[in-house]
Amino acid sequence: MDDPIDRLRLIRTESVGPITYRRLMARFRSAAEAIHALPGLAAAGGATFTPKIPTRAEAERELAALRKFGAQLIFLDQPGYPEFLAQLADAPPALAVLGDVALLSAPAVGIVGARNASANGMRLAEDLATNLSPKLTIISGLARGIDAAAHRGALRGGAHQTSTRAGRTIAVIAGGLDVPYPPEHDKLQAEIAANGAVVAEAPLGTAPLARHFPKRNRIIAGLVLGLVVIEAAAQSGSLLTARLANEAGRELFAVPGSPLDPRSKGANDLIRQGAHLTETAEDIFANLPDHPGREGLSRDPLFQRVNAGFGEPPPVWAEPADGAELSRARRRIPGLIGADPVTVDEIARRCQLSTAAVAAVLLELELGGRVESLPGNRVALTASP
Amino acid sequence: MDDPIDRLRLIRTESVGPITYRRLMARFRSAAEAIHALPGLAAAGGATFTPKIPTRAEAERELAALRKFGAQLIFLDQPGYPEFLAQLADAPPALAVLGDVALLSAPAVGIVGARNASANGMRLAEDLATNLSPKLTIISGLARGIDAAAHRGALRGGAHQTSTRAGRTIAVIAGGLDVPYPPEHDKLQAEIAANGAVVAEAPLGTAPLARHFPKRNRIIAGLVLGLVVIEAAAQSGSLLTARLANEAGRELFAVPGSPLDPRSKGANDLIRQGAHLTETAEDIFANLPDHPGREGLSRDPLFQRVNAGFGEPPPVWAEPADGAELSRARRRIPGLIGADPVTVDEIARRCQLSTAAVAAVLLELELGGRVESLPGNRVALTASP
Repeated sequence: MDDPIDRLRLIRTESVGPITYRRLMARFRSAAEAIHALPGLAAAGGATFTPKIPTRAEAERELAALRKFGAQLIFLDQPGYPEFLAQLADAPPALAVLGDVALLSAPAVGIVGARNASANGMRLAEDLATNLSPKLTIISGLARGIDAAAHRGALRGGAHQTSTRAGRTIAVIAGGLDVPYPPEHDKLQAEIAANGAVVAEAPLGTAPLARHFPKRNRIIAGLVLGLVVIEAAAQSGSLLTARLANEAGRELFAVPGSPLDPRSKGANDLIRQGAHLTETAEDIFANLPDHPGREGLSRDPLFQRVNAGFGEPPPVWAEPADGAELSRARRRIPGLIGADPVTVDEIARRCQLSTAAVAAVLLELELGGRVESLPGNRVALTASP
Repeated sequence: MDDPIDRLRLIRTESVGPITYRRLMARFRSAAEAIHALPGLAAAGGATFTPKIPTRAEAERELAALRKFGAQLIFLDQPGYPEFLAQLADAPPALAVLGDVALLSAPAVGIVGARNASANGMRLAEDLATNLSPKLTIISGLARGIDAAAHRGALRGGAHQTSTRAGRTIAVIAGGLDVPYPPEHDKLQAEIAANGAVVAEAPLGTAPLARHFPKRNRIIAGLVLGLVVIEAAAQSGSLLTARLANEAGRELFAVPGSPLDPRSKGANDLIRQGAHLTETAEDIFANLPDHPGREGLSRDPLFQRVNAGFGEPPPVWAEPADGAELSRARRRIPGLIGADPVTVDEIARRCQLSTAAVAAVLLELELGGRVESLPGNRVALTASP
């Protein structure tokens, strides 16, 4: 593999998101080359600043601190990186893992739901996790309510099993590995790390902010074969996780509840849209596939969006572009992109230039901070210049 | 139409069930002719007794008593008989109606569920009925719990409406019109009769017994375009009604509930099998068809049975059979029928006789009390000779 220090430097560069990272690696084949090209690309893309690329010393310090903390960093194209997560177009370029890295590649189901869950909801989450855990790893987000109940149920399941695999659970957290959140779950996180794994995309020391939670949710969605939603209000983070899981072809399960409880709304909606109505672990065992599918719940108005792309970025991102064409592309493309996401193919069609030239210019615009890459091979103007 | 007195005599003959009644009417074209032929057919079918056919005076007394009670009798092929109910193979040959007969032909939805319903379940039933009642007649079975809540909700809906059609509800009862059940619902029954209709298949004076309830349930299933199930335990009467409604091509709706409440099991199962997950009246308005369909929920293991036939009995029941063939059929057919239902076509195929001869002999065996006719053009041995 490439030098992990350069990898980490590229990953921690603020203007390089997971999709841009993939494009840069497809184009330059090595992190060192990408880092070398970065300032030029950003300038061509109209950047008013030089990309802030961490130094080698900074990256080395991060790796040393992780090692000291007992964690390891696994990179997107390393053998230990979980295969199903890698299928996301915006898969994390690197994951910090505390605990058993191999567990990330074991068959898993996610259990997510309301932080303000009812006692019954938490009991259901805990029992489901206990009953699933002899055969499946339970993944959740360490949040209050359903998440914590799911982790605890899985740990309890392991306590009664002789198999060393049983009762394993993975917590995917929004902040750094050394910032358990909520703070009162620090002991739970330690117990999960000792019996399973804790996973973070953010560097050590990162306090979880609102914007980190959707990123955390996509990791849960990417790691699991199926996702169980228990007590999720309309517009909740659990429903976002469900949408991401669905887009990634993961099976959806939802526990129904009374229409009189607003916490039932989200799970009932998911069932109406095609998620498996789930009462017991049997409902999950009976409907969980061995591999992610390529299609989600097509019945669903909530989910009628462009599906996330799978696997590697299209080869066009690696193709060289002709110099004269590149100049034309630089003039024409910015005017074709608005706040509404548009596919790269659509841009190429409208400007009548080669997709290689379009891809090259889009990469510049991304690094210039003017355009944002989205799953589904789409781009949009960034919110502010 | 035929003489209603003879119709009623034939209908009230104990060995003549709804399917046999249809077959006799198809064969003899008039109740008087069927009554005339009945003793001979029963004897040929091995009856050890003469069919007890009510006298004209007895039938006249029943009609007079109904009239005095303020009710009327409508016969299966009369214009006022509800069209969708007539589609059942075992549609009641006559219905006693207290209240507005025309209401039976208005678009309706059934709401059924547990007698020991929760306060939340009853509130849901009542609110659904109130919100549906401006556009749909609400049909239920006058039982404790969900049924009564649905009737009350519909009546409440009517109290706030200016339309004379709004808030109408129909109670289908298992006993006679003069035997409200449960007894404490006598005032509710009177209120329903005054604002809608009360329907009974059994004669006046009939106390409802266990065997009357499935018959009542099929009438609810036959009258409605859709059936809503709220809180129904596994194996409950509400699920039987759902099965009958499904077999008759009526749309199924079910209100979900927590897996921790056993009363949710039936409705959750129905949703898993394809019933519309229902939280509000909108879910019903959005999915209720104008006419019954010909297919039910095919996904459903619970419902993987022979579907009930639609419309009129097959013409074979009206065809004359050849004398010599009839004798052969009388010798061979009894040995081909067991306790497991078998279709008439299957019997004809196995004994290699004309279906006309098979049909004629089956009618004799039915009237002889040895064979029972079932929906789906099937027959089975009666439980005891």
